[in-house]
Amino acid sequence: MTASTRKLPTARDKLIDAAMSVIRAKGYAATSVDELCAAAGVTKGAFFHHFPSKDSLAVAATGHWSEMSEAMFGAAAYQRLDDPLDRILGYLDLRRAMLRGPVAEFTCLAGTMVQEVYGTHPEIRRACGASIGGHAAGLQRDIALAMKRHRIRASWTADSLALHTQVVLQGAFILAKAKGETAVAEASVDHLRRYIELLFRRPAKAAKRKS
Amino acid sequence: MTASTRKLPTARDKLIDAAMSVIRAKGYAATSVDELCAAAGVTKGAFFHHFPSKDSLAVAATGHWSEMSEAMFGAAAYQRLDDPLDRILGYLDLRRAMLRGPVAEFTCLAGTMVQEVYGTHPEIRRACGASIGGHAAGLQRDIALAMKRHRIRASWTADSLALHTQVVLQGAFILAKAKGETAVAEASVDHLRRYIELLFRRPAKAAKRKS
Repeated sequence: MTASTRKLPTARDKLIDAAMSVIRAKGYAATSVDELCAAAGVTKGAFFHHFPSKDSLAVAATGHWSEMSEAMFGAAAYQRLDDPLDRILGYLDLRRAMLRGPVAEFTCLAGTMVQEVYGTHPEIRRACGASIGGHAAGLQRDIALAMKRHRIRASWTADSLALHTQVVLQGAFILAKAKGETAVAEASVDHLRRYIELLFRRPAKAAKRKS
Repeated sequence: MTASTRKLPTARDKLIDAAMSVIRAKGYAATSVDELCAAAGVTKGAFFHHFPSKDSLAVAATGHWSEMSEAMFGAAAYQRLDDPLDRILGYLDLRRAMLRGPVAEFTCLAGTMVQEVYGTHPEIRRACGASIGGHAAGLQRDIALAMKRHRIRASWTADSLALHTQVVLQGAFILAKAKGETAVAEASVDHLRRYIELLFRRPAKAAKRKS
């Protein structure tokens, strides 16, 4: 995916694309401005024309990351399902299906950066928090609707379950990196799906036929 | 906790302690050898006497991290509980109780490092994978025993559930960093505990009295 698919990408677009891919491959601190320029195919002058610093590119890339993610999940087929519980499970099935290919291509820019910069770069931390929190907010709405529709009275909230889905995905990326394989991440998404089915008392078999 | 509590710490011990705390606070790539020496109160000469590189210190620190973790959880009160399911829930209760104070003090050295270096530093990645995997193996044994004792026939394995607990903890650290608070991490450990209670068909109320 590129920063802009409708018009010719500008130097700014190319730098944002480069940031999303290089930072996910080697982390934020290890990525230099020179490397970002080389990956984007732009000059250092062009870099500093668009961004005062590497930090400001990181913040812009996180904002773009959120927009891309919103567009992608917003257009996904599961969004057309009538039952909000089916949409939540459909979301998880899509997340599981996305665990393919090189790790740097399915992991999260925000989660990768915040892991190392949370204490040293408050602006990047805020951008990452907003990105992950904004994504969870979309799920929270469907979880709240599903609780109402399926008459679930619970000691947990829609908000905490939405955040828990992001916890599992972020943790699954780390275990995939540590083990050098994606099966562990897929298995964790399966555990999360099973948990949500249990919370909503949906028989696992019916759910299996669906997925 | 220090690298050695029984004898006077050596320069090597001090460097390992410094690595565990500085890397968890600011990430691996952002941590310089100079900073590690300053935090340890040792000379650069002493550093290179003990470690050929920052990478080799990171590998040694990860090994020490695993030993510390094994000693701490091995000595925990929950290990004396008779029912392996109680030991698993006791482990989660302890992990939840540990989510206190500054983020850098309760997060995981291995998870922090592997997030950024997985593709660039294969030796560190292997050490982190061994650390997380070794910790999960201890839980796997108790989960397997609990499945037998509670006659659980399941589509999931003890191994995948043990790894899932580590996924949730690693992800909880990331959300705590992103949101700048620990409540989100505590809520995720609660979700994980509820999931395990549901899998083992343990009434949540009985479990609540216990915790």
